[in-house]
Amino acid sequence: MGTIAAGYFGAIEAGGTKFVCAVGDQDGKILVEERFPTTDPATTISHLVACLRRQSVEIGPLAAIGLGSFGPIELRRDARQYGSILKTPKPGWTGTDVTGPLVRAFSCPIGFDTDVNAAALAEHRWGAAQDVEDLVYLTVGTGIGGGAIAAGKPIHGLMHPEVGHMYPRRHASDAGFAGVCPFHGDCLEGLASGPAIIARCGKSLDQLDAGDPQWEIEADYLGQLCAQLVLTISPRRIVLGGGVMNQLQLFPLIRRRLQLWLGGYIDREEVLACVDDYIVPPRLGAQAGILGALALAFDAAARI
Amino acid sequence: MGTIAAGYFGAIEAGGTKFVCAVGDQDGKILVEERFPTTDPATTISHLVACLRRQSVEIGPLAAIGLGSFGPIELRRDARQYGSILKTPKPGWTGTDVTGPLVRAFSCPIGFDTDVNAAALAEHRWGAAQDVEDLVYLTVGTGIGGGAIAAGKPIHGLMHPEVGHMYPRRHASDAGFAGVCPFHGDCLEGLASGPAIIARCGKSLDQLDAGDPQWEIEADYLGQLCAQLVLTISPRRIVLGGGVMNQLQLFPLIRRRLQLWLGGYIDREEVLACVDDYIVPPRLGAQAGILGALALAFDAAARI
Repeated sequence: MGTIAAGYFGAIEAGGTKFVCAVGDQDGKILVEERFPTTDPATTISHLVACLRRQSVEIGPLAAIGLGSFGPIELRRDARQYGSILKTPKPGWTGTDVTGPLVRAFSCPIGFDTDVNAAALAEHRWGAAQDVEDLVYLTVGTGIGGGAIAAGKPIHGLMHPEVGHMYPRRHASDAGFAGVCPFHGDCLEGLASGPAIIARCGKSLDQLDAGDPQWEIEADYLGQLCAQLVLTISPRRIVLGGGVMNQLQLFPLIRRRLQLWLGGYIDREEVLACVDDYIVPPRLGAQAGILGALALAFDAAARI
Repeated sequence: MGTIAAGYFGAIEAGGTKFVCAVGDQDGKILVEERFPTTDPATTISHLVACLRRQSVEIGPLAAIGLGSFGPIELRRDARQYGSILKTPKPGWTGTDVTGPLVRAFSCPIGFDTDVNAAALAEHRWGAAQDVEDLVYLTVGTGIGGGAIAAGKPIHGLMHPEVGHMYPRRHASDAGFAGVCPFHGDCLEGLASGPAIIARCGKSLDQLDAGDPQWEIEADYLGQLCAQLVLTISPRRIVLGGGVMNQLQLFPLIRRRLQLWLGGYIDREEVLACVDDYIVPPRLGAQAGILGALALAFDAAARI
């Protein structure tokens, strides 16, 4: 990444329910932070620009801004819609240009990526994956999303990883459940996200007995997802966060299912011995998103 | 990749049934090439060293050597076994150091990667994916393997992609077939490789009528594989080669299955409109392997 320019950096976490707007310094310290709900695009973005301008007046001029956004988003720099939200079920937001207003309001470089690629960058730089250059950050909550870093760089390509929408094989004890994904029914998000668990058994995981079969079903689906990641992106660490993963007893169960689904084929201790530093919880917790946006700002400043 | 050093480059394709040993120039032209069968490791590798030495005496000193090998192989530069074949069903080859003898015999840098990552590099540099930096090269033949390039670089990480061993959902007309993969039974390789087709219906695809249901089954499994790749590695092109893919009528069928499995979620013309330049045949044909090894040699020379 090279040397980070001295100065102050804007950091924006654009989520489907709330925005976080912050200014940090070159050491990765957040100096000021504000949150507000995501409403319609025009209101939200004018609020964002005003908020960041106010913060910058208070703290100092911005060397760059980083924006980690809910997706899908246009990351191809040669595309007309670069910097915009693509087709989303979130009413009114399809086609919204989220970087353009920042470019016009602030004369500095803008880094832009998915919220989950940003979180992966933050865990890589300051969190649970500082010692590896290839990693995946997964979040299992209201949806299932993933960001991926290969050789130190976020994966983009045709779109960006959308790993929550792969189809797992159905667990034998879960044949009757249709799944909740509006696009795919029983893809991973449809079967293993927080809303899927509630739709299936009327409760969230933390309300279930330790012996409830739901724990094994959840671990099986997430173990399959990890196996699909090992066989494609080949991460050296998988950071598994989000609300569902606050149930830390899932981790050993998922490690065993990963081992089982790979069937001894991947000759690596990380998989064969179910080591506890391969699939790990995030170290930055709820801060991963805003720190990831700060990392995007650093990278944008380093590019110029 | 930077400028390519002038001079001559060794290129080796290490396959499970044959080795190809060649010398090429900085323009990507193969000047001399020899093939010999893969037998036991000691015989094969001493034959290889003698062959390349003879070629180098004939053509000129080598600036670097590239070796694309059957896998799995150790690519982590910090690992004790770097440059070796890992656990393989091929008798005698587990743990074979394939780069060490070359390092000792030739005083030049050695580039090393999987045969499929090498083929992906070759198609990227000279073939069907010159205009993109993110691509996957798949081969569907005696096995199913894949190489992947993200942001211009082969994906390594924990191991390397092993995409043929993901599990697809079973096709409704194929429920009774157990699959032929010795590790996984009905993973993609177990269901859609050349031997799987023969095990299922006693014939290869080219011996079947156009109306045979086997065509749809094969296309469905390969379409699922492409969908899993779009959702993880997010390639801007998928190059689909190998013996089974000589049946070019599979391409439009696979494009339609990819569209179906993604369920409209990936908002890209490449997927939604089944365009014919997203999933494409290789342009280098059987030359992809040896040209990929040459590309590995170029990269090894550029690193010093």
